[in-house]
Amino acid sequence: MSKKKYDLIIIGAGPAGMMASIYASRYGIKHLVIGGIPGGLVTQTHKIGNWLGTESISGMEFVQKAEQHVKSYQTEILNNLVKKIKKDKSSGFEIFLENQEKKETKAIIFAVGTKHRCLEVPGEKELLGKGVSYCATCDGFFYRNKTVAVIGGSDSAVSAALYLADIVQEVYLIYRKEKLRAENFWVEAAEKNPKIKIIYQTKVKKIIGESKVESLELDNQFENLTQIKVEGVFIEIGAVPAVELVEEIGVELDDEGYIKINSDGSTNISGIWSAGDITTGSNKFKQIITASAEGAVAAQSVQKFLKK
Amino acid sequence: MSKKKYDLIIIGAGPAGMMASIYASRYGIKHLVIGGIPGGLVTQTHKIGNWLGTESISGMEFVQKAEQHVKSYQTEILNNLVKKIKKDKSSGFEIFLENQEKKETKAIIFAVGTKHRCLEVPGEKELLGKGVSYCATCDGFFYRNKTVAVIGGSDSAVSAALYLADIVQEVYLIYRKEKLRAENFWVEAAEKNPKIKIIYQTKVKKIIGESKVESLELDNQFENLTQIKVEGVFIEIGAVPAVELVEEIGVELDDEGYIKINSDGSTNISGIWSAGDITTGSNKFKQIITASAEGAVAAQSVQKFLKK
Repeated sequence: MSKKKYDLIIIGAGPAGMMASIYASRYGIKHLVIGGIPGGLVTQTHKIGNWLGTESISGMEFVQKAEQHVKSYQTEILNNLVKKIKKDKSSGFEIFLENQEKKETKAIIFAVGTKHRCLEVPGEKELLGKGVSYCATCDGFFYRNKTVAVIGGSDSAVSAALYLADIVQEVYLIYRKEKLRAENFWVEAAEKNPKIKIIYQTKVKKIIGESKVESLELDNQFENLTQIKVEGVFIEIGAVPAVELVEEIGVELDDEGYIKINSDGSTNISGIWSAGDITTGSNKFKQIITASAEGAVAAQSVQKFLKK
Repeated sequence: MSKKKYDLIIIGAGPAGMMASIYASRYGIKHLVIGGIPGGLVTQTHKIGNWLGTESISGMEFVQKAEQHVKSYQTEILNNLVKKIKKDKSSGFEIFLENQEKKETKAIIFAVGTKHRCLEVPGEKELLGKGVSYCATCDGFFYRNKTVAVIGGSDSAVSAALYLADIVQEVYLIYRKEKLRAENFWVEAAEKNPKIKIIYQTKVKKIIGESKVESLELDNQFENLTQIKVEGVFIEIGAVPAVELVEEIGVELDDEGYIKINSDGSTNISGIWSAGDITTGSNKFKQIITASAEGAVAAQSVQKFLKK
């Protein structure tokens, strides 16, 4: 294998990428982390209660500590986005960044995670940033004493509703099914919260507003109306894997678009490993702990690969 | 399914069992943790450097924090050992403890981890506790200013040698191969440490001593001798899965004796999940982070199972 600047480039700086970096550092692997947002989606989590040994920590604080841990080994985290990945002639890879730079590496751990799923209703795109948001932690503050809606029934949705209830006047939690699918812990807290009204078996058909969100059109009546007035709507209906970059170089995906990995984190392309929410690993349970573990496994595998 | 006291019993209170418990608590699953030693082998780790967001923590402190986290949900950790697991007539299980108590449950997460591998040489059993130890963190203190040996080349072995070097006068690190297989981070530190002498390509044939360890017989000369004088010997040559309890009720193992799990943590026996170092999961990478992640996945699967 020809000499390259890096033995490993980790694309993605969420828990999977950061944990992979720490293991790589401890193995003495010369590597670089490239990530648009250190911490990834974790930065948008207002409260983490299930990180072993830590009863409660904000997403932002967790990310700061993780980043500091990565950097304690003098590892660089490049805050940039990758535009293209190309195989080179010597079984390595060229990575092209949005700022026109090019990086060369022998191995890649691809760990960019997922992006927010869209509701795909009229008004969603048009009113994005004008009342439509995918991140309660980021934007909740703007709705102090106002009425907002959260759409979804997962941990993210219900915990977003709870977070918002501390700030806003009233939260509608709108879910298409008859029972929230979040952890009991969140469900009970939401049900007890006087500021949260849960609307079950209901879909949002349209987000209405001229220059900003004014109301939602529902497919079911709620208190005899099919429209409810809100000034903000937080869409928390899950995530889709962000696989564009690796799809074009032939990394194999499953039916739902997740990167197929083997038990050692390897993909079908030699030299490319993957870890975290973007993979088929950990039974697709998208948790900080599972993403981190996959990062560790991938780093160990890369170490074995580089030793050959 | 008939009414039982518990919906879930987690056997094993290491990282896998404790993480499973935290997830189970947050799902509202009525459960009990049974574990001889809360923290399991982690209690024997003197320093953890690869827990995301925590640059350095002792094994004992980590375990205390994890245990406190588990108990913050009012979950009981029973410090007892399981003697037998039996299927009952209603597709659940009876768990018999060494103190003669019996517990009943619908589901089990089996997460007892591994136990120390023995060297299988003369003197090892005879001198156990008289100079022979499997835990530097536990027993290192007794060898202040003495000469000891550590046997092995893994992360555990090399980090044990480093830990001991702070206490004792001299440490022989004896490994059968020509290169240590620990993380570079540990290897470099050991090589730099003036108190550590690394003896490569050498096996210990015999542990010699009357009432306590006096010397080791090697299969290769070291400084022209095949015997070296030591007062303590720490055996750190890996682990074997502790599967006796589940083997007898038919849980399927792989060739190396690890519990075969599916991606959701399930075993071949309905109602029994498994997580952590004892399983074939996480590419058999035995780390706190991988064990914890497997615990989370198993708990999620149990939650889905109980909802049915």
